Amino acid sequence: MLSWIDGCPATLLSVRDRGLSYGDGLFETIAVSRGVPCLLDRHLARLAEGCARLSMPLDLMLVRAELLAFSNELGDGVAKLMVTRGDGLRGYAPPQPQVPRRLLQGNPKPSYPAANAEQGVRVFACMTRLAEQPLLAGLKHLNRLEQVLARGEWHDAEHAEGLMRDTSGRVIEGVYSNLFLAKDGRLLTPDLTRCGVAGVMRAELQAQAELLGLTCEVRDIGYDELLAADEVFLCNSLYGVWPVRALHGRDWSVGPLTRKLQVIARDLLDS
Amino acid sequence: MLSWIDGCPATLLSVRDRGLSYGDGLFETIAVSRGVPCLLDRHLARLAEGCARLSMPLDLMLVRAELLAFSNELGDGVAKLMVTRGDGLRGYAPPQPQVPRRLLQGNPKPSYPAANAEQGVRVFACMTRLAEQPLLAGLKHLNRLEQVLARGEWHDAEHAEGLMRDTSGRVIEGVYSNLFLAKDGRLLTPDLTRCGVAGVMRAELQAQAELLGLTCEVRDIGYDELLAADEVFLCNSLYGVWPVRALHGRDWSVGPLTRKLQVIARDLLDS
Repeated sequence: MLSWIDGCPATLLSVRDRGLSYGDGLFETIAVSRGVPCLLDRHLARLAEGCARLSMPLDLMLVRAELLAFSNELGDGVAKLMVTRGDGLRGYAPPQPQVPRRLLQGNPKPSYPAANAEQGVRVFACMTRLAEQPLLAGLKHLNRLEQVLARGEWHDAEHAEGLMRDTSGRVIEGVYSNLFLAKDGRLLTPDLTRCGVAGVMRAELQAQAELLGLTCEVRDIGYDELLAADEVFLCNSLYGVWPVRALHGRDWSVGPLTRKLQVIARDLLDS
Repeated sequence: MLSWIDGCPATLLSVRDRGLSYGDGLFETIAVSRGVPCLLDRHLARLAEGCARLSMPLDLMLVRAELLAFSNELGDGVAKLMVTRGDGLRGYAPPQPQVPRRLLQGNPKPSYPAANAEQGVRVFACMTRLAEQPLLAGLKHLNRLEQVLARGEWHDAEHAEGLMRDTSGRVIEGVYSNLFLAKDGRLLTPDLTRCGVAGVMRAELQAQAELLGLTCEVRDIGYDELLAADEVFLCNSLYGVWPVRALHGRDWSVGPLTRKLQVIARDLLDS
């Protein structure tokens, strides 16, 4: 399994790393196709935003160069990039100077059932709620216990994803994905300023929808509004778009907007 | 620096550890005095509670035995115990079977200024708020970005601690400590069922107060009520009790209940 730390092959890191001690870092999960990282600029933009909000200095040009070299070596698969605040002593105060650590891990492409994209997936309605923390909302940081708890709620293979709501009951995202609704020909996706991960595929689909002349509204969405949607789909940077065909007793058929964006996502990940 | 992994001297761990990937684990910071871990039963009880709530199997007898052996070798200092869900592949789903990893790190006793305990400390009122997440409240888990952000808010040596409120404005705790108030001869400490870490020294002081015939109420506390308190003090399992002498323009002198519990805490940490 391909694994680099700070640009060199390595599989072990210091027990003093603040990524381990505090989850003090960020990550990106990047599809790699024929040696090329997909949606690289969007991944790097989110990483830059995370570093800014966590006050973590990072040489993004170096990260980009390493990602390109790593992807070239990986060929086809998934590159997981983690950036931590590096080693620290006991105590939350960031070390001075900060020396962030860059970790890259290669994984094979997940082999999802073809039916997930074609007929859509069944989604589990998780009881685990996302806490509302605007300071961390949108970031793909290393504090992911809520997702671990949510993913522990179902064990059958029948559900391909779990729906997460926030502690106030708003619909936010999937455990591994973002969520879109279509209603009366318009797109809608939950506001992620209180919690949730602002996915790169979500951002790309928002931009692509605009190019197609589709409006995509970003706002709070209640559970009832989700159930009343004409179409529902999930997206992430590995599988693109999966239609949602069932959620807790409600069934949907795959709709035209979902198919349109699915084709776009597939092209982005194949390029 | 003394460092063990799974009972053996080691300073490096796998980049696949879920403690790093997701903060999927727990920790304890334990004062060690003359080779003996202080408040060991309370630390292990909190760890057991955390394992139960995170559905993480852990051999607590083994952890106890390792802590005793590690402390004996450390002599005087601080033992940091981390327990993670061990290695995992990509994805939040816990691996089957789970093989939790035990990490122990030794650190010297921190050298706090004597004035902190004697005259009390000045506390910074942090802007970073704690998100309300009942599923994780009370646990000392490895998702600590909120504390990292809060600790990054002040850089002067004048403030020894930071006060943290939740997103609804309730007073919760210090960045590194729990908080008690005294008002009209009664003790009061914030309810920690929505957020915060239920410290072992807090639990011990609650029990000791009861033995002294003091009532200690646990409930929601607003910022105004904190400012109106007769006495305010902080506690943790390393320094015991520090009186609070100033917070954002409000000054206190050190009161009798604070002193009484400070003596008790000192004895617990010296034994």
